[in-house]
Amino acid sequence: MTLLREAIGERLRRTRTSQRRTLREVSRVARVSLGYLSEVERGRKEPSSELLGSICVALDLPLDELLRRVADDLGPVYLPEVPDTLAAELVAA
Amino acid sequence: MTLLREAIGERLRRTRTSQRRTLREVSRVARVSLGYLSEVERGRKEPSSELLGSICVALDLPLDELLRRVADDLGPVYLPEVPDTLAAELVAA
Repeated sequence: MTLLREAIGERLRRTRTSQRRTLREVSRVARVSLGYLSEVERGRKEPSSELLGSICVALDLPLDELLRRVADDLGPVYLPEVPDTLAAELVAA
Repeated sequence: MTLLREAIGERLRRTRTSQRRTLREVSRVARVSLGYLSEVERGRKEPSSELLGSICVALDLPLDELLRRVADDLGPVYLPEVPDTLAAELVAA
């Protein structure tokens, strides 16, 4: 299962590079450290909602648009797998 | 600006209640504590991507669908405000 922070990080990175901007510039505008932004883009750090908001502002990317793009990246074929044991629990509940 | 964790929490809560399920049942299936799930639903705790994935599985809600619904909740009128000072920095950069 793709993790949300990985999908968000990849989309942030693609948005930044499509704008031909550097990590340094975006991190400065977003007021986050360059190292932190780099870790977020690589899906290694879970950004807080506040910092994600700052990064979106720095990229001029509305949050709802980010989410739609990430949803598209995940693709329509994505479905979480419910283990049989859990499915049985749900039916029994 | 609406924070992502608040929008996600509200959408998780609406999904759960529309299924007429209790915090107790969903927290058990997702293997998170009831108190933690409650805090996530109220937007007070930032869920890790792993725990968010577990909650989505427990709600039978694909991650991409969650994101699209949250994007809809945020609404098309949402646009982050770029402070004038930052806009000037962007132009100068």
